[in-house]
Amino acid sequence: MKIELITIGDELLLGFVVDTNAVHLARVLAGVGVEVVRRSTVPDEAEAIAASVREALDRTGGVVTTGGLGPTSDDMTKPAIAALFGRQLQLNEGIVALIEERFRSFGFTGPMPPGNRQQAMIPDGAVIIPNAHGTAPGIWIEDDRGRWVAMLPGVPREMRGMLADELLPMLRQREQDVPTVVLSRTLRTTGIGESALADLLGDDATGFPDLPLAYNPGWQGTELRLTARGMSLPQARKHLDDGIAKLYSRVERYVYAEETTDLAEVVLRLARARGARIATAESCTGGLLGARLTAIPGASDVYTGGIVAYDDAVKLRIIGVDPEVLRSEGAVSEAIALEMARRIAKQMQCDVGIGITGIAGPGGATPGKPVGTVWIAVQVQDKSRTHGRVFIGDREEIRLRATQAALDMTRHMLA
Amino acid sequence: MKIELITIGDELLLGFVVDTNAVHLARVLAGVGVEVVRRSTVPDEAEAIAASVREALDRTGGVVTTGGLGPTSDDMTKPAIAALFGRQLQLNEGIVALIEERFRSFGFTGPMPPGNRQQAMIPDGAVIIPNAHGTAPGIWIEDDRGRWVAMLPGVPREMRGMLADELLPMLRQREQDVPTVVLSRTLRTTGIGESALADLLGDDATGFPDLPLAYNPGWQGTELRLTARGMSLPQARKHLDDGIAKLYSRVERYVYAEETTDLAEVVLRLARARGARIATAESCTGGLLGARLTAIPGASDVYTGGIVAYDDAVKLRIIGVDPEVLRSEGAVSEAIALEMARRIAKQMQCDVGIGITGIAGPGGATPGKPVGTVWIAVQVQDKSRTHGRVFIGDREEIRLRATQAALDMTRHMLA
Repeated sequence: MKIELITIGDELLLGFVVDTNAVHLARVLAGVGVEVVRRSTVPDEAEAIAASVREALDRTGGVVTTGGLGPTSDDMTKPAIAALFGRQLQLNEGIVALIEERFRSFGFTGPMPPGNRQQAMIPDGAVIIPNAHGTAPGIWIEDDRGRWVAMLPGVPREMRGMLADELLPMLRQREQDVPTVVLSRTLRTTGIGESALADLLGDDATGFPDLPLAYNPGWQGTELRLTARGMSLPQARKHLDDGIAKLYSRVERYVYAEETTDLAEVVLRLARARGARIATAESCTGGLLGARLTAIPGASDVYTGGIVAYDDAVKLRIIGVDPEVLRSEGAVSEAIALEMARRIAKQMQCDVGIGITGIAGPGGATPGKPVGTVWIAVQVQDKSRTHGRVFIGDREEIRLRATQAALDMTRHMLA
Repeated sequence: MKIELITIGDELLLGFVVDTNAVHLARVLAGVGVEVVRRSTVPDEAEAIAASVREALDRTGGVVTTGGLGPTSDDMTKPAIAALFGRQLQLNEGIVALIEERFRSFGFTGPMPPGNRQQAMIPDGAVIIPNAHGTAPGIWIEDDRGRWVAMLPGVPREMRGMLADELLPMLRQREQDVPTVVLSRTLRTTGIGESALADLLGDDATGFPDLPLAYNPGWQGTELRLTARGMSLPQARKHLDDGIAKLYSRVERYVYAEETTDLAEVVLRLARARGARIATAESCTGGLLGARLTAIPGASDVYTGGIVAYDDAVKLRIIGVDPEVLRSEGAVSEAIALEMARRIAKQMQCDVGIGITGIAGPGGATPGKPVGTVWIAVQVQDKSRTHGRVFIGDREEIRLRATQAALDMTRHMLA
C-alpha cells in the first residue's frame, strides 16, 4: 500500500519543531508494508491543507495527517478536510463527555474551555479514532471511491499511541488483499567510514540485484539498509534474510546491531551476560555517556554510576588521578584517560571502567591538540585498551562520536 | 520571498533519518525574511524529484533542495532537475581538480573513485555553489522566467556551511526589491502548562491583532511565538518588539529565554554573573543534567562536575548520603534529593548543588511512587529548595522534564 504523509503546522515550516512524527510514522508504517511515497508539510491554513490533501489523494488515494486537531483557532485540519470531502461538522456528545471526564480526572472543576468543544466536532460519516492519551480524537474519513484520510494529532505521545492501538489495525485490515509490500532491514555499523565500507562491499554486496543497498552515515556510524519492493511479504522477508546474512558476513566486525537498537543497549546486554558492572569517568562528554547508558530501561543492573570530572580538580580529588601524570601529560592524554578508567572501576567496584577526556571545542585547542582530540580508555578486569583520535564535527557531534567510540571499544572487549 | 523546500532521500521517507536540515533551513531563511510555504520529501527517484520540483516552481518560483548530490548511484537530484530545465550535464574540470585536491589532503594517494567524478558534472548554464566542507558542490539553476532551484547536499555540516556562506548572500541580493517579509519571535516559558498560559494571556495577548500567537508545548515548556507577515521589515521588527514586550510583561515569571536559547545556557550565565560554581548529583537522569550543562560552549568556568549515583551504593559511599535517611525515606524522596544536593556542593566545593532522584520507568514504580515521580533539590550557598512531582511521558520525556525543572529551580534561586 502506498500512502502520503502530510504534517500540518506553522511551527514545522518555520523550523521551530523537529518533525519527529514523520520519522516514527514512516518506520512503523514500513514495518507493516505501508510505503510512504511522499511527505509534505503545510501551514495551519485551510486552503494549503485542502490543496495538499487533494493532490496526495490524486496520487495515492491514502493520506495520513498529523497536527491541527488541537483546541485553538489555528487548528484547521478538520474543517479543511471535511470541506474537501463535502461533509458538515457535527458536535459529538459522546466525545464531549469523554473530554469532560478527562478534565475532571486532572482535577479541573470549572466548565470545559470552549476550544475543547471544538475538538468534539466530527465530520458527518467519519469514523472516530479514539485517543487514550489526550483530548483530541483522530478522524478517519473516506469517500465512495475508497479514498481516505486519517487525521492524527501532532503531540507525539498521543500520535504514537493512536497509531499503534487504532490506525495500524485499521490499515492491516485494508491491506489484506494487497499483494506487494515494501520492507527494509538495517545493519548498524561503527568504527569504519562510509567510503571504506563501500570499498569493502563493492558493487554487488548482497548478490541480490533487486535489493538496493543504501548507506546512511551519521555520528553513530554508517547504517546499511536493504529495501525490498514490489514483492509479496514472504518473498520480501526471505530475500532480506538472505541479503542481510550475506552483508553481515562481509562486515561483521563493524556491525553492532540491527534496526534501531542503540549501541548502549548492546553493551549493557553483553555486560549483563558476563555479570559485569560498568562505571564511567567523563570529562569532555560531561555525563553524556552515562545519560546514553541510562536511557536504556533496566540499565541499573549493569551501570553503577560515574563521575563527571569536568574540572581537573575533580579528576584529582574525587577520581584520584596521579597529579604527576596530570602535570606531565596534560588532562587530554592517553595516560589520563587510562587513569580515569582504572580508578573509576576500582572506586565504584566495577569490572568495567570507561574514561573519556578530550577537547569538544569550539575553544580549548592547544598546539598538537586540535579541537576534536579525544582519548578514550576502557578497563575490563585487568585488561585495558586506549584509543586516541581527532573527531570531526561540531561540539555536539564530537561529544556524541566520543561516546560511540567508547561504547564500541567496550563492546569489542566484552564480546 | 516565498519558496518551497524539497528534501530528497529514501532514508527520510523510510524514517531512518530525522530531517534536521528542514528545521535549520526554515529558521535561517525566516531570519532573512524568506518564507518556506511548503516542504516536501520525495524518494531518490528522478521522476518523483522532477514532479515535486515542477509543482513547487509553479506555486512559488523558488525551490531549495537538499540531498541526492553524493557520489553513489542513488543520487539523482542533478540529472532529474537538469532534465526538467532542459539542460545537459558537463564534466567541470575545475571541480574535478578541487575534489582531487581534497582527496589528497586526506592522505588518499590512489585514483579518485569514479563516483566522485559524477559530483563534478554540472548542468549547462548553472552557477556552482562552492562547498568548503565536502566534495559535492551545490548548484543554482534558473530559467529565463527567473524561476530557480538551489541544490544543496544533504550532509548537515556541508549544507549549513554553504547556506551561510553562499546561498544566503545570493538570496539577499535577489530579495532587495521585495517589500514584505515574514518574521517571528519566540519567548520560551517553563513551569506552567499550555492551557494555564492561555488562560493567563486570554484572547488578545499582545494588543496586536496582526500578530498571531502560537503555543508550542514540549518537554522544555511552552514556546510562545508571534509571527508578523506581509509587513515591511522595519514595521515587522517594531510590531514584534512591542508585542513581545507586552507578552513578556504578562508571563515574566515563566519566561527563561528568547528564541532558541537553552535553559542550561541561562543558568550558566546567571551563575557566571554571580561568580558561582555548580555541581550535580544525579540518579534517574544518569548524567543528562551534566550533559546539558556541558553542551554549552564555555561551561567549564561554571560547571565543576558531578556524580552519577545510579546505584544506591554510590549515593552512600561516594556522595555520602546518610544511610539512616536512605533506609527510612527511600532513594526517591525529598530527604535524599536534599542530601545529594548538599553533599555534592560541599564535596565539589561549589556554591550550587543540584540533586535529582526519581523513577523514570517503565519499571520501578512502588506503592505511592508511580513512574514519573521525581524529587529535585537545589542548594545555593546556605539556602535550599526542594520540589517533588510526577512527570508525564515516557522514560526519555520524564528524564528531560526532570533536568528542565531542576534548571528552572536553579534559575529562580540565582536570579
